[in-house]
Amino acid sequence: MDYKFSNKLANLKPSAIREIFKNLTDPSVISFGGGNPSPESFPVAELKELAKGIFEKDSSVALQYSITEGYTPLREVLKARVKDKFSIGRDFDDTIIVSGGQQGIELACKTFCNEGDVVLCEEPSFIGALNSFRSNGARPVGVACDGEGIIPEMLEEKLKTVENVKLLYIIPTFQNPMGITTNLERRRRVYELCKQYGVMILEDNPYGELRFDGEDIPTIKSMDEEGVVIYCSSLSKILSAGMRIGYVVAPQAVTSKMVVAKQGEDVHTNIFFQMLCHKYMTECDIDEHIKKIRVIYRKKCTLMLDCLEKELPGDITFTRPKGGLFIWCTLPRGLDSAPFVKGLVEKKVAVVPGATFLSDENGKSSSFRLNYSTPSDDDIRRGVKILGEYAKEYLANN
Amino acid sequence: MDYKFSNKLANLKPSAIREIFKNLTDPSVISFGGGNPSPESFPVAELKELAKGIFEKDSSVALQYSITEGYTPLREVLKARVKDKFSIGRDFDDTIIVSGGQQGIELACKTFCNEGDVVLCEEPSFIGALNSFRSNGARPVGVACDGEGIIPEMLEEKLKTVENVKLLYIIPTFQNPMGITTNLERRRRVYELCKQYGVMILEDNPYGELRFDGEDIPTIKSMDEEGVVIYCSSLSKILSAGMRIGYVVAPQAVTSKMVVAKQGEDVHTNIFFQMLCHKYMTECDIDEHIKKIRVIYRKKCTLMLDCLEKELPGDITFTRPKGGLFIWCTLPRGLDSAPFVKGLVEKKVAVVPGATFLSDENGKSSSFRLNYSTPSDDDIRRGVKILGEYAKEYLANN
Repeated sequence: MDYKFSNKLANLKPSAIREIFKNLTDPSVISFGGGNPSPESFPVAELKELAKGIFEKDSSVALQYSITEGYTPLREVLKARVKDKFSIGRDFDDTIIVSGGQQGIELACKTFCNEGDVVLCEEPSFIGALNSFRSNGARPVGVACDGEGIIPEMLEEKLKTVENVKLLYIIPTFQNPMGITTNLERRRRVYELCKQYGVMILEDNPYGELRFDGEDIPTIKSMDEEGVVIYCSSLSKILSAGMRIGYVVAPQAVTSKMVVAKQGEDVHTNIFFQMLCHKYMTECDIDEHIKKIRVIYRKKCTLMLDCLEKELPGDITFTRPKGGLFIWCTLPRGLDSAPFVKGLVEKKVAVVPGATFLSDENGKSSSFRLNYSTPSDDDIRRGVKILGEYAKEYLANN
Repeated sequence: MDYKFSNKLANLKPSAIREIFKNLTDPSVISFGGGNPSPESFPVAELKELAKGIFEKDSSVALQYSITEGYTPLREVLKARVKDKFSIGRDFDDTIIVSGGQQGIELACKTFCNEGDVVLCEEPSFIGALNSFRSNGARPVGVACDGEGIIPEMLEEKLKTVENVKLLYIIPTFQNPMGITTNLERRRRVYELCKQYGVMILEDNPYGELRFDGEDIPTIKSMDEEGVVIYCSSLSKILSAGMRIGYVVAPQAVTSKMVVAKQGEDVHTNIFFQMLCHKYMTECDIDEHIKKIRVIYRKKCTLMLDCLEKELPGDITFTRPKGGLFIWCTLPRGLDSAPFVKGLVEKKVAVVPGATFLSDENGKSSSFRLNYSTPSDDDIRRGVKILGEYAKEYLANN
């Protein structure tokens, strides 16, 4: 059989990160490549007890088909939480449950983009989102960023010159892969520009609660009086990534379309774990729990930054995140990071090459991404030491 | 904000069934409308015990991100099972886990269809599948069926005359909504025709294990020596529908594309429940469990058929399924079932109008679907009695 795949999937490659993750079976490799939350951040004992209660009292609901929008009590508690924490949600908004933030991103694209339409995004951006746009036949176009986030002038230029732009995809807080945060003035400007040009904002905020330094900056969704913003977040970094539970806050006219698309994708999200999340959020102290995660991540991030400071040659620069999971390192002299990263894996340290995150699949990058949430403290020390030694030698010869 | 939705979603309506289900909050309504497995078919006590063990021993895997293809031990056990039970799987095939059979259907469409391409399907067919094709911009085109399943001559005519056909979607065993089963000769003919015309077969088999009468008929996938068939099934009707776990057996060249598309949709399926299913399938006797479900469904189906025989006016015909969840009733004289069903809801009995399942969203149907797996025996008796009285009166006046 000669398979004729759809145009959108014919040439799409699997995410390099997922593939790295899949092949990382060699236990002697220290991985800074993943984006996994620390296993310590999952409240196992509480979830176990609550799960037992669901099996005992609510199994006929928890194991049966449910409604696509999600478990109503969980939607209510999430709605109240984002309103309280982030001033998110107006009367025209609705909150729905999705199978991880990833599905929220994908559904937003499906809802607004025809094949060939454009999604603007930060350059570089989250590969999972870029590939979900591509697998829907939409085309990601990057907008330049600096240490303060997306550059509004560059965004306006794209809005003016690129045709068929339907969405701006943005991770304003602790961006993946760079770890940077868009400042408040720019968030306001981004909102106004998109409103002006009639382009929906898809605000992805998976790491917003993982701030361990500095003050919260208002989300773009908190400014949304006109129904321009689709806000996407998840419980993956707080309760469990493996359960695949995320949520979307967006104008009801938009969520109702997303719900129709979701029906066709998976009918609904695992209802047992929706009920489990609801129980956890109402019967346990999630804020105390998040405080603990922040302490873990501050410690791990500080440790990695200290090690980088000490071990890396001075001409490699890196970001200093105040939350989230990632540090972004850049080689000097515009050196391509792809061969650098390939050689590093042979030294048993895995990182993700920056080109992975570009809107142009054939683009080159001088940067690479480090994750500090997953490796043990000892692996951080040993891995960065290897990285530093390797980098010194590499830069001397290239 | 004036929302400009994608062409594929702009006019798509939510599934009538999901909407009926959502609004069925009036406890005095007897529902034959759903497609839910009987709650008695979920092995709650065993799942509870096994879940406890996962929290205690494997939580760091069960709550963490995992790989898109699915939990390898579950893939292996499912692969062995379908090989053993249904002679499914050749060397070129791979088995992947999806978030319910629904996702397998959707991914197959995404993998093969560009916007505007055609998916042939039985007329009538499963609304969830039709809507997932529509939400990908593909167009379902119906092929006529009779009591022995899809009519090969009609299929060939469509294959000859309709342009850009990429898939045939077919539920050969205990079809939804009709409850009919495609005979062996036709299955062979369908396979040969699709091979000849270079069209992939998407064989959906959610009910195959729920046969309570007669002999198994080989799946189309069991004939697949050339890699023409994507086989889709799930554990929804056997272990739990709410957990959203299904699987796909298809040529590896195809599953690898489906995996890329799945990455963009939900990264992976809830891993805790994948592990739970694996444990159940290796530590408990799933065949014994399925035998029990068959006994329940035989009893319920027989009861509903007996009641229909007794209560319905003789000029309403209905199918006599040998498995699955549904009975298909047809009004005489080509009467439109839509106003009939509407009036019946006012008598507090809900069924699904046949037009819901047509490839033409504006089409009319004389039929309606009854589900016997969800209602209690008493509700079956009372509901069919109301249906019979209402039908007699309706037919006398229309």
